Amino acid sequence: MDRKINVTIYNENFHETTKPALKSIYPESIHGALKSFLEKDDAIGNIRIATLYDHAEVLTQEAMDDTDVLIWWGHAKHDKVCDEVVDRCAKRVIDGMGLIVLHSGHASKLFQKLMGTETYMLRWREAGEKARLWNLAPNHPITKGIKETFTVPHDETYGEPFGIPNPDQIIFLSWYQGGEVFRSGCTWRRGEGNIFYLQNGHETFPVYYQPEIQTIITNAVKWACPVNRICKIDRGGSNTPALEKYELEDHNFLLLDENDHPANQK
Amino acid sequence: MDRKINVTIYNENFHETTKPALKSIYPESIHGALKSFLEKDDAIGNIRIATLYDHAEVLTQEAMDDTDVLIWWGHAKHDKVCDEVVDRCAKRVIDGMGLIVLHSGHASKLFQKLMGTETYMLRWREAGEKARLWNLAPNHPITKGIKETFTVPHDETYGEPFGIPNPDQIIFLSWYQGGEVFRSGCTWRRGEGNIFYLQNGHETFPVYYQPEIQTIITNAVKWACPVNRICKIDRGGSNTPALEKYELEDHNFLLLDENDHPANQK
Amino acid sequence: MDRKINVTIYNENFHETTKPALKSIYPESIHGALKSFLEKDDAIGNIRIATLYDHAEVLTQEAMDDTDVLIWWGHAKHDKVCDEVVDRCAKRVIDGMGLIVLHSGHASKLFQKLMGTETYMLRWREAGEKARLWNLAPNHPITKGIKETFTVPHDETYGEPFGIPNPDQIIFLSWYQGGEVFRSGCTWRRGEGNIFYLQNGHETFPVYYQPEIQTIITNAVKWACPVNRICKIDRGGSNTPALEKYELEDHNFLLLDENDHPANQK
Amino acid sequence: MDRKINVTIYNENFHETTKPALKSIYPESIHGALKSFLEKDDAIGNIRIATLYDHAEVLTQEAMDDTDVLIWWGHAKHDKVCDEVVDRCAKRVIDGMGLIVLHSGHASKLFQKLMGTETYMLRWREAGEKARLWNLAPNHPITKGIKETFTVPHDETYGEPFGIPNPDQIIFLSWYQGGEVFRSGCTWRRGEGNIFYLQNGHETFPVYYQPEIQTIITNAVKWACPVNRICKIDRGGSNTPALEKYELEDHNFLLLDENDHPANQK
Repeated sequence: MDRKINVTIYNENFHETTKPALKSIYPESIHGALKSFLEKDDAIGNIRIATLYDHAEVLTQEAMDDTDVLIWWGHAKHDKVCDEVVDRCAKRVIDGMGLIVLHSGHASKLFQKLMGTETYMLRWREAGEKARLWNLAPNHPITKGIKETFTVPHDETYGEPFGIPNPDQIIFLSWYQGGEVFRSGCTWRRGEGNIFYLQNGHETFPVYYQPEIQTIITNAVKWACPVNRICKIDRGGSNTPALEKYELEDHNFLLLDENDHPANQK
Repeated sequence: MDRKINVTIYNENFHETTKPALKSIYPESIHGALKSFLEKDDAIGNIRIATLYDHAEVLTQEAMDDTDVLIWWGHAKHDKVCDEVVDRCAKRVIDGMGLIVLHSGHASKLFQKLMGTETYMLRWREAGEKARLWNLAPNHPITKGIKETFTVPHDETYGEPFGIPNPDQIIFLSWYQGGEVFRSGCTWRRGEGNIFYLQNGHETFPVYYQPEIQTIITNAVKWACPVNRICKIDRGGSNTPALEKYELEDHNFLLLDENDHPANQK
Repeated sequence: MDRKINVTIYNENFHETTKPALKSIYPESIHGALKSFLEKDDAIGNIRIATLYDHAEVLTQEAMDDTDVLIWWGHAKHDKVCDEVVDRCAKRVIDGMGLIVLHSGHASKLFQKLMGTETYMLRWREAGEKARLWNLAPNHPITKGIKETFTVPHDETYGEPFGIPNPDQIIFLSWYQGGEVFRSGCTWRRGEGNIFYLQNGHETFPVYYQPEIQTIITNAVKWACPVNRICKIDRGGSNTPALEKYELEDHNFLLLDENDHPANQK
Repeated sequence: MDRKINVTIYNENFHETTKPALKSIYPESIHGALKSFLEKDDAIGNIRIATLYDHAEVLTQEAMDDTDVLIWWGHAKHDKVCDEVVDRCAKRVIDGMGLIVLHSGHASKLFQKLMGTETYMLRWREAGEKARLWNLAPNHPITKGIKETFTVPHDETYGEPFGIPNPDQIIFLSWYQGGEVFRSGCTWRRGEGNIFYLQNGHETFPVYYQPEIQTIITNAVKWACPVNRICKIDRGGSNTPALEKYELEDHNFLLLDENDHPANQK
């Protein structure tokens, strides 16, 4: 690889700053916990942090163009995120930036926009239940170092039916103590961007300190990083000339001239 | 089936009303041509028509709730379609309404919203080239009565790369005289709604009179019609009780009470 | 529909004839239980029965050509099924016959041949645990009449990782009391044939009397039935002539003549 | 990476040794041409060669266990390949070995076994037509360095419908001069193994000297290489103990004892 992977983390940081009890779990907030293990990996370069309070200033076009993989954690304040920022991030994903969506980020504007469906549709229960993840793809880059199954001692329960489009690949399925199952690790491609969703990480439990979860997120950053490491993938312009000149006797049957073309009339 | 399939057709109707030359092709506009063959089928019931000029009045919530399958043809005036109508239609698709998107409808707000990606990304050329469709799914309900291959004598050329998410099923691939290929017939599921995209039908050529095209669209209406024929599919509420009561010694570790829950603080 | 759906059931019938205790559960064997509810449906026509002991005589080419959907239940004696019969059935699936594989049929020669992978790879435990199925596709023909979730009071537990190729569609995910999850209802297409796998139905529990399971299997028969109801789908011959005659100046560069063609030398 | 990628090439080598005209194209046979560009890549280690004439001796279990990626080119003599070798190779793919199938290898026993369908079903024409490949996945590891489109001046024409199961990802679609289209670059996962099929490379044209084709095959070797670089992935044993001990009042209802279990009666 020619250079290291630039990561940007968006963490809402609302719960951590408003609920004193959470300070004992995430003294540096969730973004601090994520940054702390990601920065230990040699493949990862610059790590930017954005929160609800500064996201419009941090997630600029320049920052996005310099980001290879964006990580998104949000929960209570999805509707406070600027639409302009969401559009900018979504466009970068289409152009190849990787995206990792964590836990309640399933209901973020960004994830919903890219999925095209009401992904907040799922069952949930805050009961501190045990979750057991099953690894469906032991030879996938995201599961390197992850065994066939492992448990998260306490997490929020999510349950099917989950309103997502068919994933390109299901990486993890989760079992929960109270009777639910969930497609808890999934990949999709949107435009040129690789997207990974991981269910785990409710703010009231120290999930992001768990080694398996750290390994999965680190692997996912490497997997989601665009192959070509460029800011934009040129997918070609319009009105392509044909492969070869050819004579077509009646090809101009009712053919519109350039000025008539709808694209020029808007 | 307990009742007939209610269809709503949105046709922009801009070209037909502004370009005199098109009158010789579609004297009753594209929606008229579509309606004309659909209404001959016994399985199809009421057919509503909406155009750019009246779509806000026609595509009401009541009309959408009474629609089983929505057909969408738009080209030059996508940006003039009301966002509120788009949201209403998209939500109905998520709830199970079928959607058939024709030709330049790939760039409509509705299709882009449901796909979650910049589906206007494709190559195109208005050259009246011959298109040859290949049937990749001869045992699919959409291809009933369609042979292995057939040609559309003249149509606009579309070319890959087409910025769509991976289709659930590719039904047709098209070959064009000038050197392009295209995934010209594709299905997706979004929420509970079945979606079919068909590339053919540029307004300057009489494509919707071609028997194969009429068969495909009629089949697609039947395929896309929701199984349960209801207006909304209840996907369940939130905070689901567990399957069984159980004692979990530490399940209330830092558990938020109801009033603290983020969903109640917005 | 022009005629009713002809169904053939293969049931090993080994456990029922060798374990007296099973007589109290399936006095007419599993095939009897399946036939009993299928024959009540108006869309279903002739139902053939084959068992381990007579399958070579029953599953003839003529019978297969007359079968629209084949149901397969096997467990202990997969290796006693004739390879010739397996090849015949697989070829019919490729040509469009529907296939429904139940429970331990995942390890049958037929299913493994069509999947192309070691589908017997899964975890299992005979512990009479409760299974809870979650309906991931409420608007799919197979789930018509099935609610969001239901339980099977006692069944064999199957667990991921399940060595199947990515399904075209996951219909059900199952949760088991002891900590497993399983893709318990899946569809694939092989050639022109529709395939559905359902996990439930261990021989020691009266699962096939449960109304939800009966509804699912009946629905699946209708879904899997080929659209064209023909015995064979002609997918075209070889050495296709080009769409149009054309002159290609150097197209005969090293071109083999007919007799040289490898296909004629075998 | 801890060590280099070990590659094994199977090339039938029948045409090259029986048709003098081919000597001017592939003086070192097709396997020689493949080896020649692969060995220039630093990531690639040992390259073994097997042909029709020695494949039983070369493709031993030991060689397979030491192989990370197997490349397969065959055409006229598929039926002369030992079934035992095919089973061994297929099992290694299930356990994680990568597989790259070239051109007529689509009809090889190995590819057909892994696909589970009659993949020899396609249209074809030996007419030296121009093929144009369209890159559908510009941010995929296999297309690194490949532009949006490129042409192969002369190759055998393959045409849809191609009897493959739905690919996990379509990488290339091809257009052919005479009116065909083809899913010419596709990926699948079988068990833990990554599989890539590339259509190009008829023996009568110097396709494997073309830089784009060499880049694609080299990329594919790196993509297909198993993540864990082990010989076997242990997918767990059977009769798994439950996650936790629990009391189930009636779980032994008709429960078979160990000796009764069908798996022990075969």
